Amino acid sequence: MAAMDNVATLARAAHAAAGKLSGTPGPVRDEALRAMALALREDAAAIFAANAEDVAAARAESLAAPLLSRLSLDEKKLDGLIEGLLALLALPDPVGRETLRTELAPGLVLSRKTCPIGTIGVVFESRPDALVQISSLCLKSGNACLLKGGREALRTNRALFASLSRAAASAGIPDGWAALLESREDVSAMLSLDRDIDLLIPRGSNEFVRRMQESTRIPVMGHSSGICHLYVDASADVAMAVRIAVDAKTQAPATCNSIETLLVHRGIAANFLPALARAMSEKGVELRADAAALPFLPGAAPATEADWDAEYLAPVLAVKTVSSLDEAVAHVNAHGSHHTDAIVARDEAVASRFLSGVDSADAFWNCSTRFADGFRFGLGAEVGISTGKLHARGPVGLEGLTTYRWLLRGTGQTVAPFAEGTMRFTHRPLPPQGAE
Amino acid sequence: MAAMDNVATLARAAHAAAGKLSGTPGPVRDEALRAMALALREDAAAIFAANAEDVAAARAESLAAPLLSRLSLDEKKLDGLIEGLLALLALPDPVGRETLRTELAPGLVLSRKTCPIGTIGVVFESRPDALVQISSLCLKSGNACLLKGGREALRTNRALFASLSRAAASAGIPDGWAALLESREDVSAMLSLDRDIDLLIPRGSNEFVRRMQESTRIPVMGHSSGICHLYVDASADVAMAVRIAVDAKTQAPATCNSIETLLVHRGIAANFLPALARAMSEKGVELRADAAALPFLPGAAPATEADWDAEYLAPVLAVKTVSSLDEAVAHVNAHGSHHTDAIVARDEAVASRFLSGVDSADAFWNCSTRFADGFRFGLGAEVGISTGKLHARGPVGLEGLTTYRWLLRGTGQTVAPFAEGTMRFTHRPLPPQGAE
Repeated sequence: MAAMDNVATLARAAHAAAGKLSGTPGPVRDEALRAMALALREDAAAIFAANAEDVAAARAESLAAPLLSRLSLDEKKLDGLIEGLLALLALPDPVGRETLRTELAPGLVLSRKTCPIGTIGVVFESRPDALVQISSLCLKSGNACLLKGGREALRTNRALFASLSRAAASAGIPDGWAALLESREDVSAMLSLDRDIDLLIPRGSNEFVRRMQESTRIPVMGHSSGICHLYVDASADVAMAVRIAVDAKTQAPATCNSIETLLVHRGIAANFLPALARAMSEKGVELRADAAALPFLPGAAPATEADWDAEYLAPVLAVKTVSSLDEAVAHVNAHGSHHTDAIVARDEAVASRFLSGVDSADAFWNCSTRFADGFRFGLGAEVGISTGKLHARGPVGLEGLTTYRWLLRGTGQTVAPFAEGTMRFTHRPLPPQGAE
Repeated sequence: MAAMDNVATLARAAHAAAGKLSGTPGPVRDEALRAMALALREDAAAIFAANAEDVAAARAESLAAPLLSRLSLDEKKLDGLIEGLLALLALPDPVGRETLRTELAPGLVLSRKTCPIGTIGVVFESRPDALVQISSLCLKSGNACLLKGGREALRTNRALFASLSRAAASAGIPDGWAALLESREDVSAMLSLDRDIDLLIPRGSNEFVRRMQESTRIPVMGHSSGICHLYVDASADVAMAVRIAVDAKTQAPATCNSIETLLVHRGIAANFLPALARAMSEKGVELRADAAALPFLPGAAPATEADWDAEYLAPVLAVKTVSSLDEAVAHVNAHGSHHTDAIVARDEAVASRFLSGVDSADAFWNCSTRFADGFRFGLGAEVGISTGKLHARGPVGLEGLTTYRWLLRGTGQTVAPFAEGTMRFTHRPLPPQGAE
């Protein structure tokens, strides 16, 4: 219960800080981001020392090589984080933008303005860069945050957090706007704090996200895992299809926007699949194919039904032939995770039917699914990718961390005359003010 | 379990219909709305007969007069519903609007487009007009819907539903896009159908909304009850403040956007409160006031702590004096329901501080809280009012019934060269196309 009390106190403080933070002008928040960038540079030695301890401990526990490389923070990664902070402060303020302005009646003007969500609880993985990216996105968007990182990165996260909070405080950001949680118990404790926490963002497996949704009344934004598809249409440019398939599968196989299943139209299978097999074997990718594809894929294993629902997050690719675009779309909607799905096709009509047919947050044409990323979309990095359909969908950046409120300015209007019909609404749209 | 199976079947059909509906062009959905308006006129006799039975049954159960008047559907109300359908079809199509367009790199263009949410389950009150308004908003926005109305209006709802579905089908809307649920068991059954239902909108008490949120993984949009405030600042025009207070309390006391508590600055209490007392007693409103206000309010009863958190939905008003704007804002945020809160003030600086200080979906200046309504905001009626901060907030109209998806069109781009730094993102904003 210590954790519970502790987290409840941190959440109450964050909620109070959020109230003040929503009123801070954009330049103050940007000044804090600049101070954070400088602080990371000044505290580099301490941060690297802490990270070295984490890495040593992880080695002792013989953590897998890819996880070790994600955990380790070097000069290059720190430079990237500092660049990221400076890029973020260059972006326009997402708070206080007027997105709608309507005259309801003479002297009665309605305005819709963006504002922060409030207090956000984020549970993220072992990559310590995530702490810097998430806390800076929250600050730029005027949100308070409770941050729970991976156990392996605890020392690094403490060093980064100390550096960033000191910098934010020096720039006049209210105390308590960010807090670092350290235990599993802290995460469970957050679930019941729906009076002080407005949104939970768990970055992890579907199971983790679903468990959270089942045990809290707080809205949960699913940074879900992804079963992404690439459909190679009969009209595809074979060389382009191979190049995109290789990138979407191998550029970073452990990421949620990498493809797990490739669908190919029977009309092009004989041309495309042998070229795919050569390219994938060079990259050491294991292929699992249906009966119609196997003959064209030397060395491939037969796929089972389970493969169509598998998220490998590894150099394994399921290959299925289809006899029509509709069959491809139906397969994506039945087996996919509504994350990111792409088509390679020369025929624009076919591509449009695919883009409108798949019920996915991101639908791509003639490019790699790996582009599904907040930085690549130009959103100023991301706190996660939402496969939910409400509020933010797809990569969630600055705008996804804001909501809006309605402001109505009158000159004494009452509803009675409108209800009685002696006055009528004009509903005249006006140009939004101070909008981007 | 019959209900469960039945509802599961209806939900699966609605989900399938939603897939087709999202592809129907706006003109087809508008044609269906026109057919619905004609059908209501043609079937008026049958609808009035069904409503007469409902009203008779309700009288037999001696239902309260205000509820009876909400339940009864006369020529005037039907004309209003038909006008509403025609007004809705005149509004621009909320689906397929491009809200963002960015060049990520040469030949690689990102587009964000609005799309329907999918299948929406709505539980609404005894007012049969709600069935027509909600189903038509869902249709215009391309959503399938499961509708559960009040038990008292069952016969009327069946008649309206039969008329509307026949009309929609005749216009080519896919079967199953709307279904009528009739029992409490049907509502509980919906809660577990998260594969087929994308959103639940319960219209009812806070408790009802909270119970739903606790027992489902489906997102719940809270059409919450409201504890709304009117703050009369020291700089207020007394006559305007009285006029607005009377409208906000008495124009429709049982509605969620009526005020329950009036806050008044001590500096104006002596001038304002006696005028308020006279106006409210003429309207038969009972006043409950704090010690500082009582002397100025002949006939008022002393308020208890409980009054500051009460939602009367009746001609009762709590009155509290405050010594500063900050005290007023703090009271609203501590005791309000983040729904709609208003200030009457001549001093614009004070008004701005109130508007940005209250954490409410709707913040009004010099007008009545009763304007918080989808039709009055020009949103084409409303399915509810959301006091949540995510996705739609405040009155939820057409736009609140859509979400968006990201479309990326390329010419063969892969991520690798961007990751390796041999290519750079341009992130050039382009004018959205086909946007309003």
